[in-house]
Amino acid sequence: MKTITIEECAKHLTEAENVLILMHKSPDGDAIGCAYALAYALRKCGKQAMPVCSDPIPAKYGYITNALTVQEFAPRYIVTVDLADTQLFGDKLLPYKDRVDLCLDHHGSNTGYAKYGFVDAGAGACTQIVKQVIDSMGVVIDQTIANAIFTGIVTDTGCFKYSNAAADSYRMAAEMMEYGAESFMINRLMFDTKSRQRLAIEKMALDSMKFYRDGQIAVIFLTKEMFARSGAEDSDTEGIAGLPRQIEGVKIGITVKEKEDGNYKISMRSAGDADVSAVCANFGGGGHKAAAGCTVSGTLEEVERAVVTAAGEAI
Amino acid sequence: MKTITIEECAKHLTEAENVLILMHKSPDGDAIGCAYALAYALRKCGKQAMPVCSDPIPAKYGYITNALTVQEFAPRYIVTVDLADTQLFGDKLLPYKDRVDLCLDHHGSNTGYAKYGFVDAGAGACTQIVKQVIDSMGVVIDQTIANAIFTGIVTDTGCFKYSNAAADSYRMAAEMMEYGAESFMINRLMFDTKSRQRLAIEKMALDSMKFYRDGQIAVIFLTKEMFARSGAEDSDTEGIAGLPRQIEGVKIGITVKEKEDGNYKISMRSAGDADVSAVCANFGGGGHKAAAGCTVSGTLEEVERAVVTAAGEAI
Repeated sequence: MKTITIEECAKHLTEAENVLILMHKSPDGDAIGCAYALAYALRKCGKQAMPVCSDPIPAKYGYITNALTVQEFAPRYIVTVDLADTQLFGDKLLPYKDRVDLCLDHHGSNTGYAKYGFVDAGAGACTQIVKQVIDSMGVVIDQTIANAIFTGIVTDTGCFKYSNAAADSYRMAAEMMEYGAESFMINRLMFDTKSRQRLAIEKMALDSMKFYRDGQIAVIFLTKEMFARSGAEDSDTEGIAGLPRQIEGVKIGITVKEKEDGNYKISMRSAGDADVSAVCANFGGGGHKAAAGCTVSGTLEEVERAVVTAAGEAI
Repeated sequence: MKTITIEECAKHLTEAENVLILMHKSPDGDAIGCAYALAYALRKCGKQAMPVCSDPIPAKYGYITNALTVQEFAPRYIVTVDLADTQLFGDKLLPYKDRVDLCLDHHGSNTGYAKYGFVDAGAGACTQIVKQVIDSMGVVIDQTIANAIFTGIVTDTGCFKYSNAAADSYRMAAEMMEYGAESFMINRLMFDTKSRQRLAIEKMALDSMKFYRDGQIAVIFLTKEMFARSGAEDSDTEGIAGLPRQIEGVKIGITVKEKEDGNYKISMRSAGDADVSAVCANFGGGGHKAAAGCTVSGTLEEVERAVVTAAGEAI
């Protein structure tokens, strides 16, 4: 992948036609914010542009997605946003994995699968990069684009609570508010709204919490049985992985979630210096230093023992 | 109370000597941030200055308070910060209630008890006002002052989640980070750290949740028995009052907390248009439109019925 500047990314995009914008599977606020902000901006330039994802976009992001009409076209230019690795494309996007023209990302672990790319691991959210590209394209940001960019910033920085929230994250959020971003609605929807099902499964998860290594490791569990009993769906568990790390004295918080196929999805969060991205790499996963994930097979007891042992070595 | 400008407030302060800075009882991050930021700034001008409060300052604010040495002097100038009403002085500060020279506040309900004052109900946090006064005094903000001001902004805006968080709140937070504010440490300490006792009492509070009016009102309870069983102290319950409002469909969230004297402290949070400050005024309380409180006497059942009825009329 050839690294190019923000201005060059903008130039490539203004010269492109029929642009397909790829998001990672299980899309989050930053991926959705990036893809839709860019799609709206390209359409403002008179282009055909569509965001695509292997998974459905959760309904709560409707304030970002609803204004975009469906366009059908033969893609001539492929962009990925917030997408570190082709393994995160999902089945639907796999046909594009060797065809990516441009990659805009903020993961240091980006595998460089595109022709051209701009990767800034210092950006709290990938929408902070997309915003600069949109500015450089000369597109005036409207309320919908502002909402999309604001959403990426607040979701990827955990409402500014994660260490990746820098002064420019705050300033860009302020700028988006001046472009009309509905900050109160978005923050409330993303961080301060729980379904009753979420309330129920969160209580079960808290009840399941176990401590290891003198309280330096906390583990919670989300089993298929808990989902059935609470009526919660996957989208009801967003952010739950942050709970074990909240407890005083915890250095690594681990969430063990039983998948449909019987394997376990592990989410790790570091409160301090431990690099959970390295811990998860032992199991073929990855992510950021303070927030990473992987998938592990085995019985629940085996999986728990394996990840707690690996985490313990990182403390 | 004569309203004066930020610049006049700064002038009064630079001409004052032996300044006592009063905080409200049960001090929160904004009150503490204001009082200490102003004390440090006045000392940078070579003055004697001390913050005072009827209640102890919670230990977790040590990163703000520890650097201030104790000064003993006969007060010649009395300032209040973030203090709407002399009823919030507490016993220790009562002797000063008719002697306040200057009041810096952001409560629209300020009763105007001081000689001079600057009240801006549009400021998300009172530290945003104190910051402007400090600038106007010509004091250069250092890391400790930046930490104090940042703390006020994030605690009073609920980490930017409340509707009082405006673009200038975000910008001032960014500016404080550039002056060295330890944003990650502060946000983690204020919003992302729970003692095990807090975890225990939070689970009990969630288990106690009751819904009224088709789920538009949610009530949680904090009884003396729960405090005893969890080992939690008052300071472990900060922010718990925000939990009932989080549930989807809830318009008013109510927290009923049993006090030592057998009365009940009510905290109300509005998710929408309902003005809970007006609801609490029925019981002799007050606050902001979206966050208010009062104290009610009676049996738990009577209190619950009274506040739920009053809240229901406000929806």
